[in-house]
Amino acid sequence: MRVTCTSRRTMGNGRLVAVDGSVWFCVWLMVVCCAVRPARISHPQVPIQPQPCQAPQQWEGRAVVYDHGTGRNSRVLMSYDGQNQRIRILDEKKGHIPCKKFYEYIYLFKNPVLFKIEQVTKQCSKLPLLQPWDPYDIPDNSTYEDHYSIGGPGDQIEVQEWSDRKPARKFETWVGVYTVKDCYPVQETYTKSYNVTSSTRFFDLQLGIRDPSVFIPPSTCQAASSEEMSNDC
Amino acid sequence: MRVTCTSRRTMGNGRLVAVDGSVWFCVWLMVVCCAVRPARISHPQVPIQPQPCQAPQQWEGRAVVYDHGTGRNSRVLMSYDGQNQRIRILDEKKGHIPCKKFYEYIYLFKNPVLFKIEQVTKQCSKLPLLQPWDPYDIPDNSTYEDHYSIGGPGDQIEVQEWSDRKPARKFETWVGVYTVKDCYPVQETYTKSYNVTSSTRFFDLQLGIRDPSVFIPPSTCQAASSEEMSNDC
Repeated sequence: MRVTCTSRRTMGNGRLVAVDGSVWFCVWLMVVCCAVRPARISHPQVPIQPQPCQAPQQWEGRAVVYDHGTGRNSRVLMSYDGQNQRIRILDEKKGHIPCKKFYEYIYLFKNPVLFKIEQVTKQCSKLPLLQPWDPYDIPDNSTYEDHYSIGGPGDQIEVQEWSDRKPARKFETWVGVYTVKDCYPVQETYTKSYNVTSSTRFFDLQLGIRDPSVFIPPSTCQAASSEEMSNDC
Repeated sequence: MRVTCTSRRTMGNGRLVAVDGSVWFCVWLMVVCCAVRPARISHPQVPIQPQPCQAPQQWEGRAVVYDHGTGRNSRVLMSYDGQNQRIRILDEKKGHIPCKKFYEYIYLFKNPVLFKIEQVTKQCSKLPLLQPWDPYDIPDNSTYEDHYSIGGPGDQIEVQEWSDRKPARKFETWVGVYTVKDCYPVQETYTKSYNVTSSTRFFDLQLGIRDPSVFIPPSTCQAASSEEMSNDC
């Protein structure tokens, strides 16, 4: 049944002259609405959710990638170009680890291809990039988790925490911590499968890409092998 | 043999008149010293290591404890009293998880005893505290790992990373990230055994303990059970 609030009525001395049954229903509905609405406005049941901020599209900095599977930290230099869907990662040479090789990785998600280059010999592997492009940002449909400051009194940054959790439906597989000012990434955590996760902490971030040529593979990649190089001696 | 640089000599027109064998040895020693010393000063072989800062002894704040074994995050409120070796932890009631119980934990390391109190019923367990006191600070013999800023340009904190790694002898089992200014904890990571770690991130830190009575267990702990309560329904 479709209920409309138009009715046959004649205006005389301000009194309602002629009304039918549907008009009484409309009056009742308005009374109910007026009684309920102010209560809902003054005591909102659903708090207003913050909106995800827009992360910068191009930056450079450092990161520590923690692989929970192996229990090892990798320290890297990172150039992130969200606009062109490409990331360049350079293993940082920290300390002396016998037999350890250091690599450069150029992820070109538009092609999609990954170049893996040994830093000393420039030996290059050209590998298919199977994972989809996943920018360092907060997707629009993310769930707001928390807001807090990191650091001590008078020396802190404000951050927000977001996830892909769906309340009462789905546990999170991604958690992102971003600064409130300018929306720079601080930490990203992924759950690849039950109990196996990786987390990345970001440091020393600078806006923009100083030298865009870092995304161009060296000449040794023209005749690159499609086999992945071993990390062993 | 004790070598001295005193010798029998007479000063005439500026020439060395009479010298013996030990004098030639002293001259040779001085030449060698002069040749070697400036080179060592201008090219130091051992870089100066930063010294660990002194973390505050009493603070309150929030933390997220990530248990890599279960893959679960626990959000807690924390009161830390390093001076009296006691910590009070309160599970934060975030979201609705069916059957989840929220606890308060009072760690008194000097006794050493742990009170575990269910927040609604105040049911209390008094448990022996087997782990040794391990303050939130950087031990004197720690290894300096890194220095970096967290956050974006113009909105960042400077931190130092320390560990208990012994170069070429022992992998780290603890990594601590502390602010350069005032030495507040930012993150602590522990490797309990190979591949099983826990990490704690600290937020919203304030100096001092507002209410020291948080370390006094409620009256229900006077007749406390020595059995640990189950976290199930």
